Amino acid sequence: MKVKPLADRVVIKSLEVEETTKSGIVLPGSAKEKPQMAEVLAVGPGGNVDGKDVEMHVKVGDHVIYSKYAGTEVKIDGEDLIIVKQADILAVVE
Amino acid sequence: MKVKPLADRVVIKSLEVEETTKSGIVLPGSAKEKPQMAEVLAVGPGGNVDGKDVEMHVKVGDHVIYSKYAGTEVKIDGEDLIIVKQADILAVVE
Amino acid sequence: MKVKPLADRVVIKSLEVEETTKSGIVLPGSAKEKPQMAEVLAVGPGGNVDGKDVEMHVKVGDHVIYSKYAGTEVKIDGEDLIIVKQADILAVVE
Amino acid sequence: MKVKPLADRVVIKSLEVEETTKSGIVLPGSAKEKPQMAEVLAVGPGGNVDGKDVEMHVKVGDHVIYSKYAGTEVKIDGEDLIIVKQADILAVVE
Amino acid sequence: MKVKPLADRVVIKSLEVEETTKSGIVLPGSAKEKPQMAEVLAVGPGGNVDGKDVEMHVKVGDHVIYSKYAGTEVKIDGEDLIIVKQADILAVVE
Amino acid sequence: MKVKPLADRVVIKSLEVEETTKSGIVLPGSAKEKPQMAEVLAVGPGGNVDGKDVEMHVKVGDHVIYSKYAGTEVKIDGEDLIIVKQADILAVVE
Amino acid sequence: MKVKPLADRVVIKSLEVEETTKSGIVLPGSAKEKPQMAEVLAVGPGGNVDGKDVEMHVKVGDHVIYSKYAGTEVKIDGEDLIIVKQADILAVVE
Repeated sequence: MKVKPLADRVVIKSLEVEETTKSGIVLPGSAKEKPQMAEVLAVGPGGNVDGKDVEMHVKVGDHVIYSKYAGTEVKIDGEDLIIVKQADILAVVE
Repeated sequence: MKVKPLADRVVIKSLEVEETTKSGIVLPGSAKEKPQMAEVLAVGPGGNVDGKDVEMHVKVGDHVIYSKYAGTEVKIDGEDLIIVKQADILAVVE
Repeated sequence: MKVKPLADRVVIKSLEVEETTKSGIVLPGSAKEKPQMAEVLAVGPGGNVDGKDVEMHVKVGDHVIYSKYAGTEVKIDGEDLIIVKQADILAVVE
Repeated sequence: MKVKPLADRVVIKSLEVEETTKSGIVLPGSAKEKPQMAEVLAVGPGGNVDGKDVEMHVKVGDHVIYSKYAGTEVKIDGEDLIIVKQADILAVVE
Repeated sequence: MKVKPLADRVVIKSLEVEETTKSGIVLPGSAKEKPQMAEVLAVGPGGNVDGKDVEMHVKVGDHVIYSKYAGTEVKIDGEDLIIVKQADILAVVE
Repeated sequence: MKVKPLADRVVIKSLEVEETTKSGIVLPGSAKEKPQMAEVLAVGPGGNVDGKDVEMHVKVGDHVIYSKYAGTEVKIDGEDLIIVKQADILAVVE
Repeated sequence: MKVKPLADRVVIKSLEVEETTKSGIVLPGSAKEKPQMAEVLAVGPGGNVDGKDVEMHVKVGDHVIYSKYAGTEVKIDGEDLIIVKQADILAVVE
């Protein structure tokens, strides 16, 4: 199945991130509070949203930080995806 | 009876979806938390809604993901329908 | 008494609806949770409402589905009426 | 004392209404839940209200239905009056 | 000290009002629930307030009815004053 | 350190005020509920704030009354300052 | 990893500040309630945000006071960062 987000919505998938503590210990993603980092899987067309013109600034493949608690979780083909509005994406990580 | 939604509203009907877990087991729709997937049955005309111009981007027959808790449930001719605003439809699934 | 709604308001009166279950049993309106269906008795003039131009899309005699909990119940000449804003009318049923 | 409402406000006074039940019994106003019917005593000038242009559509002497819980009750010269915004007046009764 | 309200604000001072009941008994202001009547002491300049153009319609010396719970109470030179927005003034009493 | 407020913000510092009661007794500032009077220490540039054009009407040195509970308290160089939006300043006292 | 904030967002990092009390004692940052001071690490492009044109007024390296409770905390490369909207930055400190 292919998910095509409407308007200013973006489909993302949480990333497991490894993290190195200051003392050099590597914590795998599941051993700590998961940061809200995700990969962009699909981007809506933007355009007129609630009477305002929205331009999309993220693209498929971007790694992004999104607002905790934002968005709707959906399970598609056994995969846990999140659909958020672009305004709930805080930053792109490179 | 035929339900003609007003303004930016859309009439949808929940879909029972089968889902295959990663380990290959098929869960029928009723055996798990139902994802909020639905089929579009009728689409309002859009136009001026609350002072804003709304263009409709879904069409009859589309399979869509909608925002949990959104919309009004109505029973028409023994069928459970949901009337949502188009803004509560997150994505089209193909 | 004649009730003339102001602005974008509509006077409606709940409809008792018979409903046939899938197994063929007919439930009279009072034997189950009442669906929010109503007949339109009077329609306001629309026009400038809260700084926005509202055009009225329902007419007297229409059968409509309205948003549960919306509107104000009033008793006029012994009749239970409901005054709703047109935006609380979700669909017209034909 | 004369009360001159500002902006889009309207001064109203609750009406005691007699009501005939379907079975023909007349209930005086105080014997039941009072409907929110009132007579218009004074009407504000309308005009620019909160940045929006408001035209007044009720006039002194009109009998109106107003939104329960809306408005501010004031006692002027021993009379219980209510000051509401015109938007809280749902309908004119003739 | 002279209080000069900013924008669309108005400085008012509560009025003790005598009130004659229907049966002719005079209740002094302190013997009952105080009505929210006040005298206008100072009026702000109006103008652009939160992006909207506000014209002031009350003037110093006006007796006004204001919205209960609105405004900020301040004590200036031992006097209890209230600073309200003009929109919280419901009516002028003459 | 010098604090330069952004946009429509204003840096103020609470004033201890002496107050003479009607009976002539002087209450120093700390002996009673502190009125929300403050001195303006710095004024933001105004301009486009949240899509609206804001002009600043207070200036450094003004004594102002501000809305209780508004603003953010910060300690700079051991001094307790408050940063408020100009809209939370109710009046200038002269 | 490099964090590039979107729209009107700003990436900041809390500053430990030493503070000298009036009596001359120096309190290191960790010995008292941390003031909400931070250094700006990255600034979004501004532009059209929710239908309003936002110009960015802070720059990388600025020391700023930000609104307590605002923003989203994220951990990037073992560093605790905060992503806030520029509107949650109250002042620049020089």
